[in-house]
Amino acid sequence: MDQISSVLLKRCVSEFSKLPGIGKKTALRLAIHLLKQKTDYAVSLGSSIIEFREKIKFCKKCHNISEGDLCEICSGIKRNHSQICVVENIQDVISVENTMQYNGIYHILNGVISPMDGVGPMDLNIDSLVQRIENDNVDEIVLALPTTIEGDTTSFFIYKKLSDTVNSITSIARGVSVGDELEYIDELTLGRSIINRMPYSGK
Amino acid sequence: MDQISSVLLKRCVSEFSKLPGIGKKTALRLAIHLLKQKTDYAVSLGSSIIEFREKIKFCKKCHNISEGDLCEICSGIKRNHSQICVVENIQDVISVENTMQYNGIYHILNGVISPMDGVGPMDLNIDSLVQRIENDNVDEIVLALPTTIEGDTTSFFIYKKLSDTVNSITSIARGVSVGDELEYIDELTLGRSIINRMPYSGK
Repeated sequence: MDQISSVLLKRCVSEFSKLPGIGKKTALRLAIHLLKQKTDYAVSLGSSIIEFREKIKFCKKCHNISEGDLCEICSGIKRNHSQICVVENIQDVISVENTMQYNGIYHILNGVISPMDGVGPMDLNIDSLVQRIENDNVDEIVLALPTTIEGDTTSFFIYKKLSDTVNSITSIARGVSVGDELEYIDELTLGRSIINRMPYSGK
Repeated sequence: MDQISSVLLKRCVSEFSKLPGIGKKTALRLAIHLLKQKTDYAVSLGSSIIEFREKIKFCKKCHNISEGDLCEICSGIKRNHSQICVVENIQDVISVENTMQYNGIYHILNGVISPMDGVGPMDLNIDSLVQRIENDNVDEIVLALPTTIEGDTTSFFIYKKLSDTVNSITSIARGVSVGDELEYIDELTLGRSIINRMPYSGK
């Protein structure tokens, strides 16, 4: 155990080091860094952490984080509410939003089916997705789940469950990444991108 | 800029990412992690940050962090107050304390002389060190500064300044680290460790 003489510093270091990927050394560096900044910064950092955790809610429709009952995306009037993109978690919503290529709304599963980790379909927000499709007018489900066995299993599970009720179920394209040289791509990805080849459109 | 819809999340991510070594992606991961923990943790983390920054003081004697006028080490009765270890910063005090091999007190310079970065002797806590030696009964100064050009310059500067008034000025031993294989050690370190060879004591 570190020989830190100050109780205040000890507590601050111990709290910082509970964060993922932050060890004792980094926690100490962060605490010492606070000393070099104005008090205002520490107050602003500390209060933003508390406020964020205490005031944040989850959208009743898509399970995204929200400040009210509905998140900004679900309550957006310029959004296409008949198109639902199914993602694993909150970060994925931000990733898809960053592309600026999607104008529909989302549904966050809060995980993927993973029997190894004891996560079954009942542990995910799949029932509420089925409910949304029954209640609302949904034309298209876009599956944007990870390209792993767990992601694929979840995509297949949702497809089986919804294929009778939804007109169009699509999945984001999988293939060669932008900027990739063919010789360095794994065979599975390249093989699938050949099978799923598309008419050339110049895009 | 990330398309984060929640203002609370945006603020929390922005504050986290002002910390050294924490980028936008990590900041987002930390914020999302908070959501998975109980509210208590966020409150405890946030308040410990604010309390640490607001309540922490600096020891009037050695410039270490402190909760009162004097730090725990300077006010320790079991400490040898006639031995002062001169270090660069607060972290170094913790490092020396962790060795459990030192029972004297400290003096924190708050940097080292570095003309390249515009840091001269006047910017460091050297005057207050001279003052301490004039006022108190000091037998030994232990220089524990980094093994860099800046550290060596600072050690030499302090030596020149104090050699007339202090009986004994020592420096922590420099040489081959514990566990090092000779063939991988740089020539400078190995060369100096030959020049500074010591009588074998079995320790």
